[in-house]
Amino acid sequence: MTEPIAFVDGALVPRAQASVSVDDAAVRYGAACFETMRATNGRVFRLLAHLERLHAGLEGMGVEAPPAADLERAVSSALEANRLSEARIRLSVSAGRMPGPDLAATAGPSVVVLVDPVGGGAPLPLALAVASVRVDAGRPLAFAKTVQYLSYLLARAEARAIGADDALLLNTTGSVCETSAANLFVVRDGQLMTPALSSGPLPGVTRSVLLDLAASLGPAAVEQAVTLDELTAADELFVTNSVVGTQPVRSVAHGGSVLWQGTAPGPVTARLADEYARLVSRESGGGSDG
Amino acid sequence: MTEPIAFVDGALVPRAQASVSVDDAAVRYGAACFETMRATNGRVFRLLAHLERLHAGLEGMGVEAPPAADLERAVSSALEANRLSEARIRLSVSAGRMPGPDLAATAGPSVVVLVDPVGGGAPLPLALAVASVRVDAGRPLAFAKTVQYLSYLLARAEARAIGADDALLLNTTGSVCETSAANLFVVRDGQLMTPALSSGPLPGVTRSVLLDLAASLGPAAVEQAVTLDELTAADELFVTNSVVGTQPVRSVAHGGSVLWQGTAPGPVTARLADEYARLVSRESGGGSDG
Repeated sequence: MTEPIAFVDGALVPRAQASVSVDDAAVRYGAACFETMRATNGRVFRLLAHLERLHAGLEGMGVEAPPAADLERAVSSALEANRLSEARIRLSVSAGRMPGPDLAATAGPSVVVLVDPVGGGAPLPLALAVASVRVDAGRPLAFAKTVQYLSYLLARAEARAIGADDALLLNTTGSVCETSAANLFVVRDGQLMTPALSSGPLPGVTRSVLLDLAASLGPAAVEQAVTLDELTAADELFVTNSVVGTQPVRSVAHGGSVLWQGTAPGPVTARLADEYARLVSRESGGGSDG
Repeated sequence: MTEPIAFVDGALVPRAQASVSVDDAAVRYGAACFETMRATNGRVFRLLAHLERLHAGLEGMGVEAPPAADLERAVSSALEANRLSEARIRLSVSAGRMPGPDLAATAGPSVVVLVDPVGGGAPLPLALAVASVRVDAGRPLAFAKTVQYLSYLLARAEARAIGADDALLLNTTGSVCETSAANLFVVRDGQLMTPALSSGPLPGVTRSVLLDLAASLGPAAVEQAVTLDELTAADELFVTNSVVGTQPVRSVAHGGSVLWQGTAPGPVTARLADEYARLVSRESGGGSDG
C-alpha cells in the first residue's frame, strides 16, 4: 500500500505530515463544513449535491466558499494521488484564519481532502441503541454538516459502550432524528417514512436520493415526525449515508431493553438497496450492477 | 515587537507556522476543550481552576488529559517565549488523533498554547443585542468549554451586524444565558443575580470568583433563571470573563428596540470591579491595585 496523501490548501502532502494552522477557524472554533463522499470506479457520486450543501453551510457563516471547480479539482487530485477508485472522501472547508471570534474578519478558508479505502460488499446489519444525548433541531445551520460534531461522537461512544454499533439520537422534544452518521428510514405496513427535516436530521444527500427513488418506484416515502412508538411497530428499518448507501438495521435498544428487532434486510430495504446500487453503478459508468 | 510564538505539542514554534494534524479531533470533529486565561505581572490568574475545568471536559469525552503540571509548564513556556507579562492565553487540548468518529480510539491529544498581548485600563461599556441564535441548556458537556463554538460566533456576528458590541444569548426556553464570551450579572434593587448553570451558561472561572466576592462583601448573588423582563427592570448590568474581569454593559437591544440602558458602570458594578482588580493584583504579586 502506498503512503496516504492529503490535499491541503492547494498541495498534495503525505497525510502524516498534513496540518492546518492553529489559527484556523476549524481548530479554534469548529467553524468549518465538511462532506463525506463515496467514489465508485473513481467517480464521486453526487459530488455537486455535496458541494452545494458545503457552499450553503459556509454562506450561513458569512464566508465565501472557494469556487466549486477548485473544490472538484481538489477532490480529483487527492483521489488520483491515492490511486484509489473505491474510496471514502472527506472534503472540509473552514471559515478561514480567525485569530479572534469574528466571522467578519476571516482570511483564506483551509481546504482539506482526505481519502480512505472502502471495502466492497453489502454492509452488515446494524444494532442501534437510543442515546441519552439529544439533538437540538433548532440549532443554527442545522442544514449544514459542520464540525460541531461532539454530540454525535458522545452519542456514538455511549452506544458502543453497551455493545451497539451506533447511536440513534432523538431530538430535544423526543422525536427520532438520525444516527451519529446516517439518516433513518422506517418501513411499516408497506409505507416508507423518514424523520422530517424539522425534526433536526442532517439533510443527507443519500436521504434525498432515496426519497427520489422511492417516489419513482413506490412506496413513496413520507417525511414526518417519527416517534419511538412508531419504531416499535416498524416492519423494517434502514439507514442511509454517502459511504454505505443503504444499510439495514437489525435491532434498536433503549434503556437496557430491546425496543425493536427484525429482518435485516427486509424485502423493501433489499429492493431499495438494489435500486440505489444500480443508480450508483449507472452514474459511475460501471458495467455491472453493484 | 517580536514574532509571536506558539507552543504546540511540546515545542515552541513561530505562530505563523504552528499547526495541528488534519486528523486531530479538533480539526475533524471540534472535539477539543480550551481555556482563555489572563496573565497579570506574568502570572496566570486562577490557572488551577482553568485546568480543572479543562480536565473535566476531556474526561467527559473519555479522554485522559495530559498531567496538569505539563500543561502549567506549557503555559509558562509560551508566556516567557512571547516576553509578555500582560497577556491573553489560549490553551487548547484536543481528544487526540482520530481518523474516524470513535472517541475510544484516539491517540495523543494535541496541546496548543497561544499568547496575545492585552491592553491595560478599564474595558469600555458594552452595547449588547439579543441574538436569534439560542443556547441548548441540555447540550452534552455544558459544563465544559469546547470548540463547539459556532453558535456563539453566529450570535456575535448577528449582533455586530446591527452595531452592537456583542450578542446576548437566550436558551431554547427563552431564559437569559450569557454573551458570546462572558457571563452576565444583573443588579436590581441592591440585589445581585446571574443566570443559574441550569440555564446553560458556561460556568466561568470569573463568574465563580465574582460569586465568592459578592458572598463575602455583599450583596450576595443569587443564581437563578433570569427573564428578559428582569433585565428590563435592572439597575445595572455587567459581564465577566477571564480576560476583562468585569465589564459594564450600557445597553441591551432586542428586535430593533432598546430593551435596557443604564449607567455603566453603576455603583455596584464599579465596586465589584475594584474588588476583583484588587484580588487579581494581590494574587499576581503586584504592589498596587489595578
